[in-house]
Amino acid sequence: MIIIGERINGMFKDIARAIKDQDPAVIEYWARKQQQDGARYLDINVGPGSANPVEAMEWLVEVTQGAADLPLCLDSTNYKAIEAGLKKCRRPAMINSVPAVADKMEQVFSMAQEYGSEVICLAMDEQGIPKDAESRVALAMELVATADAYGLSPDSLYIDPLVLPCNVAQDHGPEVLDTLRQVKLLSDPPPKTVVGLSNVSQGTSNRELINRIFAVMAMAAGLDAAIADANDEDLMAAVATARILLNMDIYCDSYIDVFKKG
Amino acid sequence: MIIIGERINGMFKDIARAIKDQDPAVIEYWARKQQQDGARYLDINVGPGSANPVEAMEWLVEVTQGAADLPLCLDSTNYKAIEAGLKKCRRPAMINSVPAVADKMEQVFSMAQEYGSEVICLAMDEQGIPKDAESRVALAMELVATADAYGLSPDSLYIDPLVLPCNVAQDHGPEVLDTLRQVKLLSDPPPKTVVGLSNVSQGTSNRELINRIFAVMAMAAGLDAAIADANDEDLMAAVATARILLNMDIYCDSYIDVFKKG
Repeated sequence: MIIIGERINGMFKDIARAIKDQDPAVIEYWARKQQQDGARYLDINVGPGSANPVEAMEWLVEVTQGAADLPLCLDSTNYKAIEAGLKKCRRPAMINSVPAVADKMEQVFSMAQEYGSEVICLAMDEQGIPKDAESRVALAMELVATADAYGLSPDSLYIDPLVLPCNVAQDHGPEVLDTLRQVKLLSDPPPKTVVGLSNVSQGTSNRELINRIFAVMAMAAGLDAAIADANDEDLMAAVATARILLNMDIYCDSYIDVFKKG
Repeated sequence: MIIIGERINGMFKDIARAIKDQDPAVIEYWARKQQQDGARYLDINVGPGSANPVEAMEWLVEVTQGAADLPLCLDSTNYKAIEAGLKKCRRPAMINSVPAVADKMEQVFSMAQEYGSEVICLAMDEQGIPKDAESRVALAMELVATADAYGLSPDSLYIDPLVLPCNVAQDHGPEVLDTLRQVKLLSDPPPKTVVGLSNVSQGTSNRELINRIFAVMAMAAGLDAAIADANDEDLMAAVATARILLNMDIYCDSYIDVFKKG
Protein backbone atom coordinates (compact mmCIF):
# COMPACT_ATOMS: atom_id res chain seq x y z
CA MET A 1 0.00 0.00 0.00
CA ILE A 2 1.18 3.50 -0.76
CA ILE A 3 0.52 6.49 1.47
CA ILE A 4 -0.92 9.69 0.02
CA GLY A 5 0.12 12.27 2.61
CA GLU A 6 -2.95 14.10 3.93
CA ARG A 7 -1.31 17.05 5.67
CA ILE A 8 -1.40 19.83 3.04
CA ASN A 9 -5.06 20.56 3.64
CA GLY A 10 -6.67 23.88 4.48
CA MET A 11 -8.63 22.11 7.23
CA PHE A 12 -5.42 22.42 9.26
CA LYS A 13 -5.02 25.91 10.66
CA ASP A 14 -1.35 26.30 9.75
CA ILE A 15 -2.09 25.43 6.12
CA ALA A 16 -5.10 27.77 5.95
CA ARG A 17 -2.97 30.57 7.35
CA ALA A 18 -0.13 29.84 4.92
CA ILE A 19 -2.54 30.00 1.97
CA LYS A 20 -4.02 33.28 3.22
CA ASP A 21 -0.61 34.86 3.81
CA GLN A 22 1.00 33.25 0.72
CA ASP A 23 3.71 31.99 3.05
CA PRO A 24 5.45 29.03 1.39
CA ALA A 25 7.57 27.91 4.37
CA VAL A 26 4.83 25.90 6.11
CA ILE A 27 3.83 24.15 2.88
CA GLU A 28 7.43 23.34 2.05
CA TYR A 29 7.98 22.00 5.56
CA TRP A 30 5.06 19.56 5.29
CA ALA A 31 5.89 18.58 1.71
CA ARG A 32 9.42 17.58 2.71
CA LYS A 33 8.45 16.01 6.02
CA GLN A 34 5.79 13.79 4.46
CA GLN A 35 8.18 12.65 1.72
CA GLN A 36 10.91 11.86 4.28
CA ASP A 37 8.50 9.83 6.38
CA GLY A 38 7.35 7.66 3.47
CA ALA A 39 4.52 9.40 1.56
CA ARG A 40 4.51 8.53 -2.18
CA TYR A 41 1.89 11.11 -3.25
CA LEU A 42 0.89 14.36 -1.56
CA ASP A 43 -2.77 15.30 -1.26
CA ILE A 44 -3.41 19.00 -1.91
CA ASN A 45 -6.63 20.50 -0.56
CA VAL A 46 -7.17 24.25 -0.23
CA GLY A 47 -9.77 23.69 2.50
CA PRO A 48 -13.30 24.99 2.87
CA GLY A 49 -12.47 28.60 3.78
CA SER A 50 -10.48 29.64 0.74
CA ALA A 51 -11.68 32.92 -0.88
CA ASN A 52 -10.21 31.98 -4.25
CA PRO A 53 -9.85 28.19 -4.52
CA VAL A 54 -8.50 28.29 -8.09
CA GLU A 55 -5.59 30.58 -7.22
CA ALA A 56 -5.03 28.80 -3.94
CA MET A 57 -4.75 25.43 -5.71
CA GLU A 58 -2.30 26.83 -8.28
CA TRP A 59 -0.16 28.30 -5.53
CA LEU A 60 -0.21 25.13 -3.40
CA VAL A 61 0.76 22.99 -6.39
CA GLU A 62 3.67 25.26 -7.29
CA VAL A 63 5.01 25.47 -3.75
CA THR A 64 4.57 21.77 -2.99
CA GLN A 65 6.27 20.47 -6.11
CA GLY A 66 9.10 22.91 -5.54
CA ALA A 67 9.80 21.24 -2.19
CA ALA A 68 9.06 17.54 -2.76
CA ASP A 69 9.61 15.37 -5.80
CA LEU A 70 6.33 13.48 -5.54
CA PRO A 71 3.21 13.26 -7.70
CA LEU A 72 0.25 15.23 -6.34
CA CYS A 73 -3.33 14.28 -5.57
CA LEU A 74 -5.55 17.31 -6.25
CA ASP A 75 -8.39 17.21 -3.76
CA SER A 76 -11.41 19.41 -4.41
CA THR A 77 -15.07 19.33 -5.40
CA ASN A 78 -14.35 22.49 -7.43
CA TYR A 79 -13.37 21.15 -10.85
CA LYS A 80 -12.08 24.53 -12.00
CA ALA A 81 -9.58 24.42 -9.15
CA ILE A 82 -8.66 20.84 -10.09
CA GLU A 83 -8.04 21.81 -13.71
CA ALA A 84 -6.03 24.89 -12.76
CA GLY A 85 -3.90 22.64 -10.56
CA LEU A 86 -3.45 20.01 -13.28
CA LYS A 87 -2.10 22.68 -15.61
CA LYS A 88 0.61 23.48 -13.07
CA CYS A 89 1.59 19.88 -12.27
CA ARG A 90 4.99 18.82 -13.64
CA ARG A 91 4.18 15.13 -13.21
CA PRO A 92 0.96 13.25 -13.96
CA ALA A 93 -1.35 13.77 -11.00
CA MET A 94 -4.30 12.11 -9.30
CA ILE A 95 -7.73 13.75 -9.30
CA ASN A 96 -9.55 13.45 -5.96
CA SER A 97 -12.43 12.71 -6.66
CA VAL A 98 -15.53 11.86 -8.70
CA PRO A 99 -18.77 10.11 -7.62
CA ALA A 100 -20.90 7.91 -9.91
CA VAL A 101 -22.91 10.90 -11.14
CA ALA A 102 -23.17 11.36 -14.92
CA ASP A 103 -22.23 15.04 -15.40
CA LYS A 104 -19.41 14.85 -12.85
CA MET A 105 -17.97 11.72 -14.44
CA GLU A 106 -18.07 13.50 -17.80
CA GLN A 107 -16.13 16.49 -16.49
CA VAL A 108 -13.58 14.55 -14.47
CA PHE A 109 -12.90 11.75 -16.94
CA SER A 110 -12.47 14.30 -19.74
CA MET A 111 -9.88 16.13 -17.67
CA ALA A 112 -8.15 12.85 -16.75
CA GLN A 113 -7.92 11.93 -20.42
CA GLU A 114 -6.54 15.34 -21.35
CA TYR A 115 -3.94 15.55 -18.58
CA GLY A 116 -3.05 11.84 -18.24
CA SER A 117 -4.30 11.79 -14.65
CA GLU A 118 -5.28 8.98 -12.35
CA VAL A 119 -8.72 9.38 -10.72
CA ILE A 120 -10.12 8.57 -7.28
CA CYS A 121 -13.65 7.24 -7.91
CA LEU A 122 -16.13 7.33 -5.02
CA ALA A 123 -18.58 4.47 -4.52
CA MET A 124 -21.52 6.85 -4.09
CA ASP A 125 -24.08 8.60 -6.26
CA GLU A 126 -26.90 11.18 -5.85
CA GLN A 127 -28.50 8.89 -3.24
CA GLY A 128 -25.39 8.97 -1.05
CA ILE A 129 -23.27 6.09 0.22
CA PRO A 130 -24.92 2.66 0.13
CA LYS A 131 -24.43 0.37 3.10
CA ASP A 132 -23.87 -3.01 1.52
CA ALA A 133 -20.81 -4.10 -0.42
CA GLU A 134 -22.83 -5.23 -3.46
CA SER A 135 -24.23 -1.72 -4.03
CA ARG A 136 -20.82 -0.15 -3.56
CA VAL A 137 -19.36 -2.59 -6.09
CA ALA A 138 -22.17 -1.82 -8.56
CA LEU A 139 -21.25 1.86 -8.38
CA ALA A 140 -17.58 0.98 -8.84
CA MET A 141 -18.54 -0.98 -11.96
CA GLU A 142 -20.44 2.03 -13.31
CA LEU A 143 -17.38 4.23 -12.73
CA VAL A 144 -15.01 1.74 -14.38
CA ALA A 145 -17.31 1.30 -17.40
CA THR A 146 -17.82 5.05 -17.84
CA ALA A 147 -14.08 5.75 -17.53
CA ASP A 148 -13.45 3.11 -20.20
CA ALA A 149 -15.54 5.15 -22.64
CA TYR A 150 -13.03 7.98 -22.11
CA GLY A 151 -10.10 5.68 -22.81
CA LEU A 152 -9.09 5.42 -19.16
CA SER A 153 -7.71 2.02 -18.15
CA PRO A 154 -9.15 0.51 -14.93
CA ASP A 155 -5.71 0.58 -13.33
CA SER A 156 -5.61 4.37 -13.65
CA LEU A 157 -8.64 4.47 -11.31
CA TYR A 158 -8.59 4.24 -7.52
CA ILE A 159 -11.97 3.04 -6.25
CA ASP A 160 -12.73 4.56 -2.83
CA PRO A 161 -15.40 2.44 -1.07
CA LEU A 162 -15.87 5.32 1.41
CA VAL A 163 -15.04 4.62 5.00
CA LEU A 164 -17.31 6.03 7.73
CA PRO A 165 -16.52 6.58 11.41
CA CYS A 166 -16.71 3.28 13.30
CA ASN A 167 -18.49 4.87 16.26
CA VAL A 168 -21.52 5.92 14.19
CA ALA A 169 -21.57 3.50 11.23
CA GLN A 170 -19.93 0.40 12.63
CA ASP A 171 -21.74 -1.97 10.29
CA HIS A 172 -20.06 -0.30 7.29
CA GLY A 173 -16.60 -1.61 8.27
CA PRO A 174 -16.98 -5.22 7.06
CA GLU A 175 -18.86 -3.96 3.97
CA VAL A 176 -15.91 -1.75 3.04
CA LEU A 177 -13.52 -4.70 3.41
CA ASP A 178 -15.79 -6.87 1.24
CA THR A 179 -15.98 -4.08 -1.34
CA LEU A 180 -12.18 -3.92 -1.53
CA ARG A 181 -12.02 -7.68 -2.22
CA GLN A 182 -14.80 -7.66 -4.80
CA VAL A 183 -13.55 -4.60 -6.70
CA LYS A 184 -10.42 -6.57 -7.57
CA LEU A 185 -12.61 -9.01 -9.55
CA LEU A 186 -14.31 -6.33 -11.68
CA SER A 187 -11.86 -6.12 -14.56
CA ASP A 188 -8.50 -7.25 -15.87
CA PRO A 189 -6.41 -5.29 -15.06
CA PRO A 190 -8.45 -4.54 -11.93
CA PRO A 191 -8.99 -1.01 -10.67
CA LYS A 192 -6.80 0.13 -7.81
CA THR A 193 -8.32 0.97 -4.43
CA VAL A 194 -7.95 3.80 -1.92
CA VAL A 195 -9.50 4.94 1.35
CA GLY A 196 -9.50 8.18 3.29
CA LEU A 197 -8.12 6.42 6.32
CA SER A 198 -8.64 8.99 9.07
CA ASN A 199 -12.40 8.98 8.48
CA VAL A 200 -12.71 5.60 10.19
CA SER A 201 -11.72 7.06 13.56
CA GLN A 202 -13.50 10.46 13.53
CA GLY A 203 -14.79 11.17 17.01
CA THR A 204 -13.39 8.01 18.60
CA SER A 205 -10.92 7.47 21.40
CA ASN A 206 -7.71 5.74 20.19
CA ARG A 207 -7.77 7.44 16.79
CA GLU A 208 -4.31 6.38 15.65
CA LEU A 209 -4.76 2.80 16.82
CA ILE A 210 -8.07 2.51 14.97
CA ASN A 211 -6.55 4.02 11.84
CA ARG A 212 -3.65 1.61 11.66
CA ILE A 213 -5.67 -1.50 12.50
CA PHE A 214 -8.17 -0.65 9.78
CA ALA A 215 -5.34 0.08 7.32
CA VAL A 216 -3.80 -3.32 7.89
CA MET A 217 -7.08 -5.22 7.58
CA ALA A 218 -7.86 -3.31 4.39
CA MET A 219 -4.41 -4.15 2.98
CA ALA A 220 -5.14 -7.85 3.53
CA ALA A 221 -8.34 -7.27 1.51
CA GLY A 222 -6.37 -5.68 -1.37
CA LEU A 223 -6.12 -1.97 -0.53
CA ASP A 224 -3.57 -0.22 -2.78
CA ALA A 225 -3.41 3.28 -1.30
CA ALA A 226 -4.60 5.41 1.61
CA ILE A 227 -4.86 9.13 2.12
CA ALA A 228 -3.34 9.17 5.57
CA ASP A 229 -0.96 10.71 8.07
CA ALA A 230 2.48 9.84 6.71
CA ASN A 231 4.02 11.35 9.86
CA ASP A 232 2.31 8.80 12.12
CA GLU A 233 5.27 6.52 12.85
CA ASP A 234 3.17 3.70 14.23
CA LEU A 235 0.98 3.73 11.12
CA MET A 236 3.97 3.60 8.81
CA ALA A 237 5.51 0.74 10.83
CA ALA A 238 2.20 -1.15 10.68
CA VAL A 239 1.95 -0.65 6.91
CA ALA A 240 5.56 -1.72 6.37
CA THR A 241 4.94 -4.84 8.47
CA ALA A 242 1.76 -5.73 6.60
CA ARG A 243 3.70 -5.44 3.33
CA ILE A 244 6.24 -7.96 4.67
CA LEU A 245 3.54 -10.36 5.82
CA LEU A 246 1.72 -10.08 2.48
CA ASN A 247 5.04 -10.89 0.76
CA MET A 248 5.06 -7.53 -1.07
CA ASP A 249 8.54 -6.51 0.18
CA ILE A 250 11.44 -8.77 1.11
CA TYR A 251 12.05 -9.17 4.84
CA CYS A 252 15.18 -7.68 6.37
CA ASP A 253 15.69 -6.58 9.98
CA SER A 254 15.49 -2.90 8.99
CA TYR A 255 12.43 -3.31 6.76
CA ILE A 256 10.61 -0.32 8.33
CA ASP A 257 13.39 2.11 7.39
CA VAL A 258 13.61 0.56 3.93
CA PHE A 259 9.87 1.12 3.44
CA LYS A 260 10.07 4.78 4.47
CA LYS A 261 12.94 5.40 2.08
CA GLY A 262 10.91 3.80 -0.71
CA MET B 1 -11.02 -13.69 17.95
CA ILE B 2 -10.29 -15.32 21.27
CA ILE B 3 -6.86 -15.59 22.85
CA ILE B 4 -5.55 -18.92 24.11
CA GLY B 5 -2.86 -17.85 26.58
CA GLU B 6 0.49 -19.40 25.64
CA ARG B 7 2.46 -18.78 28.82
CA ILE B 8 2.08 -22.04 30.78
CA ASN B 9 4.62 -23.90 28.67
CA GLY B 10 7.70 -25.78 29.83
CA MET B 11 9.69 -23.98 27.12
CA PHE B 12 9.74 -21.05 29.57
CA LYS B 13 12.37 -21.61 32.24
CA ASP B 14 10.17 -20.52 35.15
CA ILE B 15 7.49 -23.03 34.14
CA ALA B 16 10.02 -25.86 33.62
CA ARG B 17 11.44 -25.16 37.08
CA ALA B 18 7.97 -25.03 38.66
CA ILE B 19 7.12 -28.43 37.15
CA LYS B 20 10.40 -29.93 38.34
CA ASP B 21 10.02 -28.56 41.88
CA GLN B 22 6.22 -29.10 42.01
CA ASP B 23 5.93 -25.44 42.96
CA PRO B 24 2.40 -24.26 42.18
CA ALA B 25 2.93 -20.52 42.82
CA VAL B 26 4.43 -19.71 39.39
CA ILE B 27 1.72 -21.62 37.57
CA GLU B 28 -1.02 -19.96 39.59
CA TYR B 29 0.50 -16.53 38.93
CA TRP B 30 0.46 -17.01 35.14
CA ALA B 31 -2.98 -18.62 35.16
CA ARG B 32 -4.47 -15.60 36.95
CA LYS B 33 -2.48 -13.01 35.05
CA GLN B 34 -3.45 -14.37 31.64
CA GLN B 35 -7.13 -14.52 32.63
CA GLN B 36 -7.03 -10.94 33.95
CA ASP B 37 -5.43 -9.70 30.74
CA GLY B 38 -8.07 -11.25 28.49
CA ALA B 39 -7.17 -14.91 27.75
CA ARG B 40 -10.29 -17.09 27.25
CA TYR B 41 -8.48 -20.46 27.22
CA LEU B 42 -5.12 -21.42 28.74
CA ASP B 43 -2.67 -23.55 26.77
CA ILE B 44 -0.92 -26.16 28.93
CA ASN B 45 2.35 -27.62 27.64
CA VAL B 46 4.78 -29.51 29.87
CA GLY B 47 7.68 -28.67 27.55
CA PRO B 48 10.30 -30.86 25.93
CA GLY B 49 12.41 -31.57 29.03
CA SER B 50 9.86 -33.20 31.27
CA ALA B 51 10.96 -36.56 32.76
CA ASN B 52 7.38 -37.71 33.23
CA PRO B 53 5.05 -35.84 30.85
CA VAL B 54 1.93 -37.71 31.98
CA GLU B 55 2.34 -36.75 35.63
CA ALA B 56 3.48 -33.26 34.69
CA MET B 57 0.35 -32.70 32.59
CA GLU B 58 -1.92 -33.95 35.38
CA TRP B 59 -0.24 -31.63 37.87
CA LEU B 60 -0.33 -28.59 35.55
CA VAL B 61 -4.02 -29.13 34.83
CA GLU B 62 -4.88 -29.39 38.52
CA VAL B 63 -2.89 -26.32 39.53
CA THR B 64 -4.05 -24.18 36.60
CA GLN B 65 -7.75 -24.85 36.98
CA GLY B 66 -7.43 -24.21 40.69
CA ALA B 67 -6.25 -20.67 39.92
CA ALA B 68 -8.22 -19.62 36.82
CA ASP B 69 -11.76 -20.41 35.79
CA LEU B 70 -10.99 -20.98 32.10
CA PRO B 71 -11.14 -24.00 29.80
CA LEU B 72 -7.76 -25.53 29.03
CA CYS B 73 -6.00 -26.36 25.78
CA LEU B 74 -3.86 -29.47 26.34
CA ASP B 75 -0.78 -29.13 24.17
CA SER B 76 1.33 -32.21 23.58
CA THR B 77 2.34 -34.77 20.95
CA ASN B 78 2.17 -37.38 23.72
CA TYR B 79 -1.41 -38.60 23.58
CA LYS B 80 -1.09 -40.44 26.91
CA ALA B 81 -0.32 -37.09 28.53
CA ILE B 82 -3.28 -35.50 26.71
CA GLU B 83 -5.65 -38.22 27.93
CA ALA B 84 -4.34 -38.04 31.50
CA GLY B 85 -4.95 -34.27 31.37
CA LEU B 86 -8.46 -34.67 29.93
CA LYS B 87 -9.37 -36.94 32.85
CA LYS B 88 -8.45 -34.15 35.28
CA CYS B 89 -10.20 -31.31 33.43
CA ARG B 90 -13.34 -30.00 35.16
CA ARG B 91 -14.56 -28.30 31.96
CA PRO B 92 -14.54 -29.56 28.36
CA ALA B 93 -11.06 -28.90 27.00
CA MET B 94 -9.32 -28.40 23.69
CA ILE B 95 -6.83 -30.98 22.39
CA ASN B 96 -3.74 -29.42 20.78
CA SER B 97 -3.25 -31.02 18.23
CA VAL B 98 -3.66 -33.60 15.48
CA PRO B 99 -2.28 -33.65 11.91
CA ALA B 100 -4.02 -35.28 8.91
CA VAL B 101 -2.39 -38.64 9.61
CA ALA B 102 -4.69 -41.66 9.89
CA ASP B 103 -3.58 -43.32 13.13
CA LYS B 104 -3.22 -39.99 14.93
CA MET B 105 -6.67 -38.82 13.81
CA GLU B 106 -8.07 -42.12 15.09
CA GLN B 107 -6.51 -41.68 18.54
CA VAL B 108 -7.30 -37.99 18.92
CA PHE B 109 -10.84 -37.98 17.53
CA SER B 110 -11.70 -41.01 19.71
CA MET B 111 -10.52 -39.10 22.77
CA ALA B 112 -12.37 -35.96 21.67
CA GLN B 113 -15.57 -37.96 21.31
CA GLU B 114 -15.15 -39.60 24.72
CA TYR B 115 -14.31 -36.43 26.64
CA GLY B 116 -16.39 -33.90 24.68
CA SER B 117 -13.27 -32.00 23.61
CA GLU B 118 -12.62 -29.50 20.88
CA VAL B 119 -9.62 -30.32 18.65
CA ILE B 120 -6.94 -28.21 16.98
CA CYS B 121 -6.38 -29.83 13.56
CA LEU B 122 -3.11 -29.11 11.75
CA ALA B 123 -3.06 -28.60 7.98
CA MET B 124 -0.12 -31.00 7.57
CA ASP B 125 0.47 -34.71 7.03
CA GLU B 126 3.43 -37.13 6.84
CA GLN B 127 4.85 -34.99 4.01
CA GLY B 128 4.99 -31.89 6.20
CA ILE B 129 3.38 -28.50 5.65
CA PRO B 130 2.33 -27.73 2.06
CA LYS B 131 3.03 -24.25 0.73
CA ASP B 132 -0.10 -23.42 -1.21
CA ALA B 133 -3.51 -22.67 0.28
CA GLU B 134 -5.28 -25.29 -1.85
CA SER B 135 -3.21 -28.13 -0.39
CA ARG B 136 -3.69 -26.81 3.14
CA VAL B 137 -7.45 -26.63 2.55
CA ALA B 138 -7.47 -30.20 1.15
CA LEU B 139 -5.87 -31.41 4.39
CA ALA B 140 -8.41 -29.40 6.40
CA MET B 141 -11.19 -31.12 4.44
CA GLU B 142 -9.68 -34.53 5.23
CA LEU B 143 -9.58 -33.62 8.93
CA VAL B 144 -13.19 -32.34 8.92
CA ALA B 145 -14.46 -35.43 7.08
CA THR B 146 -12.60 -37.85 9.35
CA ALA B 147 -13.80 -36.05 12.49
CA ASP B 148 -17.36 -36.31 11.19
CA ALA B 149 -17.04 -40.10 11.20
CA TYR B 150 -16.39 -39.84 14.95
CA GLY B 151 -19.49 -37.68 15.45
CA LEU B 152 -17.49 -34.48 15.88
CA SER B 153 -19.18 -31.38 14.45
CA PRO B 154 -17.00 -29.10 12.26
CA ASP B 155 -17.47 -26.27 14.74
CA SER B 156 -15.78 -28.30 17.45
CA LEU B 157 -12.64 -28.28 15.29
CA TYR B 158 -10.08 -25.46 15.05
CA ILE B 159 -8.18 -25.72 11.77
CA ASP B 160 -4.61 -24.45 12.17
CA PRO B 161 -3.17 -23.55 8.73
CA LEU B 162 0.32 -23.49 10.34
CA VAL B 163 2.11 -20.18 10.33
CA LEU B 164 5.85 -20.14 9.64
CA PRO B 165 8.39 -17.40 10.48
CA CYS B 166 8.13 -14.57 7.97
CA ASN B 167 11.90 -14.20 7.72
CA VAL B 168 12.40 -17.72 6.35
CA ALA B 169 9.06 -18.62 4.71
CA GLN B 170 7.68 -15.26 3.66
CA ASP B 171 5.65 -16.67 0.79
CA HIS B 172 3.59 -18.73 3.24
CA GLY B 173 1.95 -15.61 4.75
CA PRO B 174 -0.57 -14.90 1.99
CA GLU B 175 -1.24 -18.64 1.63
CA VAL B 176 -2.16 -18.86 5.31
CA LEU B 177 -4.57 -15.92 4.94
CA ASP B 178 -6.14 -17.56 1.87
CA THR B 179 -6.45 -20.83 3.77
CA LEU B 180 -8.33 -19.08 6.59
CA ARG B 181 -10.82 -17.64 4.09
CA GLN B 182 -11.32 -20.90 2.19
CA VAL B 183 -11.69 -23.07 5.28
CA LYS B 184 -14.82 -21.11 6.17
CA LEU B 185 -16.45 -22.42 2.97
CA LEU B 186 -15.77 -26.12 3.69
CA SER B 187 -18.88 -26.99 5.66
CA ASP B 188 -21.98 -25.62 7.34
CA PRO B 189 -21.39 -24.93 10.15
CA PRO B 190 -17.81 -24.14 9.15
CA PRO B 191 -14.83 -25.30 11.19
CA LYS B 192 -13.25 -22.72 13.47
CA THR B 193 -9.69 -21.55 12.85
CA VAL B 194 -6.63 -20.98 15.02
CA VAL B 195 -2.97 -20.05 14.62
CA GLY B 196 0.07 -20.29 16.84
CA LEU B 197 0.67 -16.57 16.50
CA SER B 198 4.20 -16.19 17.86
CA ASN B 199 5.57 -18.54 15.18
CA VAL B 200 5.19 -15.83 12.54
CA SER B 201 7.86 -13.68 14.16
CA GLN B 202 10.44 -16.30 15.28
CA GLY B 203 13.92 -14.85 14.76
CA THR B 204 12.74 -11.46 13.47
CA SER B 205 13.28 -7.97 14.77
CA ASN B 206 9.99 -6.29 15.90
CA ARG B 207 8.48 -9.55 17.15
CA GLU B 208 5.47 -8.05 18.90
CA LEU B 209 4.67 -5.69 16.03
CA ILE B 210 4.79 -8.55 13.51
CA ASN B 211 2.60 -10.73 15.77
CA ARG B 212 -0.14 -8.15 16.14
CA ILE B 213 -0.19 -7.07 12.50
CA PHE B 214 -0.49 -10.68 11.40
CA ALA B 215 -3.21 -11.31 14.00
CA VAL B 216 -5.30 -8.44 12.69
CA MET B 217 -4.94 -9.41 9.03
CA ALA B 218 -5.84 -12.99 9.91
CA MET B 219 -8.92 -11.79 11.82
CA ALA B 220 -10.09 -9.98 8.70
CA ALA B 221 -9.71 -13.32 6.88
CA GLY B 222 -11.86 -15.10 9.47
CA LEU B 223 -9.49 -16.21 12.24
CA ASP B 224 -11.40 -17.35 15.35
CA ALA B 225 -8.61 -17.95 17.87
CA ALA B 226 -4.88 -17.59 18.44
CA ILE B 227 -2.47 -19.19 20.85
CA ALA B 228 -0.71 -16.02 21.86
CA ASP B 229 0.73 -13.79 24.56
CA ALA B 230 -2.32 -12.54 26.46
CA ASN B 231 -0.04 -10.28 28.49
CA ASP B 232 1.06 -8.30 25.42
CA GLU B 233 -1.03 -5.15 25.92
CA ASP B 234 -0.49 -3.86 22.40
CA LEU B 235 -1.63 -7.19 20.96
CA MET B 236 -4.77 -7.20 23.07
CA ALA B 237 -5.55 -3.59 22.09
CA ALA B 238 -5.06 -4.47 18.41
CA VAL B 239 -7.35 -7.50 18.69
CA ALA B 240 -10.01 -5.48 20.54
CA THR B 241 -9.82 -2.78 17.84
CA ALA B 242 -10.11 -5.30 15.02
CA ARG B 243 -13.21 -6.75 16.70
CA ILE B 244 -14.75 -3.25 16.71
CA LEU B 245 -13.89 -2.65 13.05
CA LEU B 246 -15.24 -6.07 12.05
CA ASN B 247 -18.46 -5.16 13.91
CA MET B 248 -18.07 -8.09 16.33
CA ASP B 249 -18.30 -5.92 19.49
CA ILE B 250 -20.18 -2.66 19.95
CA TYR B 251 -18.02 0.47 20.00
CA CYS B 252 -17.67 2.42 23.23
CA ASP B 253 -14.78 4.65 24.24
CA SER B 254 -13.49 2.04 26.72
CA TYR B 255 -13.81 -0.89 24.31
CA ILE B 256 -10.29 -2.20 25.06
CA ASP B 257 -11.03 -2.63 28.76
CA VAL B 258 -14.39 -4.18 27.94
CA PHE B 259 -12.67 -6.73 25.67
CA LYS B 260 -10.14 -7.71 28.34
CA LYS B 261 -12.88 -8.23 30.92
CA GLY B 262 -14.73 -10.48 28.45
